Amino acid sequence: MTGGTHDAAGSGAGASSAPEPAGTRAADGTGTAHGTAPGTGGSGFHQMWRDLRAIGRHAGSGGYRRYAWTAADTDCRAWFRQEAAARGLAHEVDRNGNQWAWLGDPAQGDAVVTGSHLDSVPDGGAFDGPLGVVSAFAAVDELRARGARPARPLAVVNFGDEEGARFGLACVGSRLTAGQLTPEQARELRDADGVSLPQAMEAAGHDPDAIGADPERLARVGAFVELHIEQGRALDLGDSPVGVASAIWPHGRWRFDFHGQANHAGTTRLEDRHDPMLTYATTVLAARKKARLAGALATFGKVAVEPNGVNAIASLVRGWLDSRAADEDTLAAVVGAIEQAARERGARDGVDVQVTRESFTPVVEFTHELRDRIACLVSGDAPAPVLPTGAGHDAGILSAAVPTAMLFVRNPTGISHSPAESAAEDDCVAGVTALADVLEGLACR
Amino acid sequence: MTGGTHDAAGSGAGASSAPEPAGTRAADGTGTAHGTAPGTGGSGFHQMWRDLRAIGRHAGSGGYRRYAWTAADTDCRAWFRQEAAARGLAHEVDRNGNQWAWLGDPAQGDAVVTGSHLDSVPDGGAFDGPLGVVSAFAAVDELRARGARPARPLAVVNFGDEEGARFGLACVGSRLTAGQLTPEQARELRDADGVSLPQAMEAAGHDPDAIGADPERLARVGAFVELHIEQGRALDLGDSPVGVASAIWPHGRWRFDFHGQANHAGTTRLEDRHDPMLTYATTVLAARKKARLAGALATFGKVAVEPNGVNAIASLVRGWLDSRAADEDTLAAVVGAIEQAARERGARDGVDVQVTRESFTPVVEFTHELRDRIACLVSGDAPAPVLPTGAGHDAGILSAAVPTAMLFVRNPTGISHSPAESAAEDDCVAGVTALADVLEGLACR
Repeated sequence: MTGGTHDAAGSGAGASSAPEPAGTRAADGTGTAHGTAPGTGGSGFHQMWRDLRAIGRHAGSGGYRRYAWTAADTDCRAWFRQEAAARGLAHEVDRNGNQWAWLGDPAQGDAVVTGSHLDSVPDGGAFDGPLGVVSAFAAVDELRARGARPARPLAVVNFGDEEGARFGLACVGSRLTAGQLTPEQARELRDADGVSLPQAMEAAGHDPDAIGADPERLARVGAFVELHIEQGRALDLGDSPVGVASAIWPHGRWRFDFHGQANHAGTTRLEDRHDPMLTYATTVLAARKKARLAGALATFGKVAVEPNGVNAIASLVRGWLDSRAADEDTLAAVVGAIEQAARERGARDGVDVQVTRESFTPVVEFTHELRDRIACLVSGDAPAPVLPTGAGHDAGILSAAVPTAMLFVRNPTGISHSPAESAAEDDCVAGVTALADVLEGLACR
Repeated sequence: MTGGTHDAAGSGAGASSAPEPAGTRAADGTGTAHGTAPGTGGSGFHQMWRDLRAIGRHAGSGGYRRYAWTAADTDCRAWFRQEAAARGLAHEVDRNGNQWAWLGDPAQGDAVVTGSHLDSVPDGGAFDGPLGVVSAFAAVDELRARGARPARPLAVVNFGDEEGARFGLACVGSRLTAGQLTPEQARELRDADGVSLPQAMEAAGHDPDAIGADPERLARVGAFVELHIEQGRALDLGDSPVGVASAIWPHGRWRFDFHGQANHAGTTRLEDRHDPMLTYATTVLAARKKARLAGALATFGKVAVEPNGVNAIASLVRGWLDSRAADEDTLAAVVGAIEQAARERGARDGVDVQVTRESFTPVVEFTHELRDRIACLVSGDAPAPVLPTGAGHDAGILSAAVPTAMLFVRNPTGISHSPAESAAEDDCVAGVTALADVLEGLACR
């Protein structure tokens, strides 16, 4: 424990010590000194956090590089197996490489499953994914400490390759299981070094011939609840450490290719130029404006330029737009308006604009019944707030086949996908308590 | 000869045949059929152009990749040596790797030297550099055909590493010779693979221990005249195929570092972002506007983004500004105004802006005496136009030590540093004639 405050996140990128939940007050309200176990679920939580925190952490950036089927991923999986064994939970790896730790007999059916993922984006934070898995094990501990007796089987799950950092497609483990990605499609995936997903699986000891839809397994799941750090500041703007997801916004990515004409930057008259950087710049600013007006999100975070020389006007600027909105009509309107702005400026610049939709995920509305029940199960002074999210999750994938819900834990800075991602210790413990409440309510009647 | 027109340049980037001067009319006004030698200097010109055109040409882009001290550079140098030998000119390589071909005894002093360079930018055109070397040899042929008898020694020169494409610094050969780059500085230069300039020189058979200032050699040069394709459209907007340089604009490059905060593009509220892409985009558009208002040039052609992920708000955008203007005060004002626009937008975006001047070259005013004399020597119906250029050249480096002038040959599209760069055959031949007139006027009184 660093004894840091909410602001500790600000030093995360260059910090030499691995991130821990920050804060000095336990969830149960009893003050705890630095370094001691805070409250009911805290002891196991902290030990798990400590065991996990060194795996795949890059010394230079301070961020995590836990990519699917790499050595870091193997280490994370070994950690999961050990945590299952330490609790006497039956460990199994499904045909798509997802890990399950069972309390009770899965064959009984109608299981209550919780968990998240352990892989990361490039230089990601410590919480996105692992918080949900660690909290799941800690909630099992909490249930046992309460003496609760589950009437339904319980499982903790670690879905493989959620971030898609290595093979470019998110949620590969859950997509395969839910039949939203075919084995043929999955076998075409390659990483930046040309290694195919089957080759990577085989190198890590997983049989790639086994991958594919797994309806029998999903049929045993009566409810899936994923706890995740919030990746925005909605909870931080309120008073609750824990919230419940209403929906995942529809989202997609669009590639904008701006084709101009390479020329000498030191001699070509401004009026003779076809400079695609100008069209790109205008489009970046238009994306922000259109998103703001529509209450949506639109971001250009990735760019490729040719020839990318200091004294050369670019021949090609390629920019990727990530956009999300509360509903699909709004999203389509925002992207359409951005595209129109790009084309109008392109016509002025003599630059050709091509727009390609590279991926699209429709809106996910979590089932209201489970959502409302969970909002009531989460203990607290007030009802847990219900909020949407713009980020994709395994829960979004599974929601098509299984009643699914999500819990969010407050993120004091809203920062995610960054080494500076953080959460207060109190809030993490509150998340464990809330998750235990939900599991008890769902499984122990 | 392709029999193409001015417009043939437009198909240059993807063309499968190597570029040749386009046009069907010889400079002397006599009509020539396709494929025949056009006029006095034409025969040698075409043969040289054909011999040179395959060297270092990339089949995919159609552009040239003739980088210093590579195999393509070695082939270009072998071509130069052969052309010298074919004319009975004495070939020598100076301590800095520049090639010289002498007609007459260099020890006599007060030599008239002409030439340019054979290396290229990445995927450059056929004319930038080689036109000046080929025209120099062709002008020697023309002088001999006229029966002219030089009273001063003449030399054709190929300056090494003019574009700086490999080691990042332009005009290394002429800078070393003129003492504007020390051997110690040159030995620090490395290419993208970490190969140092001395290692590259040695691998190509040149002794790197010999490099350094060469005042004795420069003291023998009474005048240097560089012929170059124009890299803009000033001549094309008039009636003359050949012009004379007045000055090289002061120019420089500035690195703009925009430091924001990495975050999740799908969850971070717009008002919580510190997105450096927005600041960069505003700066790109400001650069264009400030340059336009001042009659200057400003270009962002190179960008680097971190982490450069589709679903990540950038933590860092780095953009390089190339800016040039007619005088140093204007240039300073333009760059200052761009920097101010960047800082103002950065303050709004919560983005830190750092500006670093990476290089700067003061204005080069070519000596008026030589310039005016050359403008009169260039034959034609009207006096040759005198025009400035924004591009750096070996002539600009040498001008500090030697009376120096430049001739420009009309560029019908203004395109340069691109496979689409082109010149009309008539204009190339007019350039040879003009250069021969200048050499005869200077050396044969």
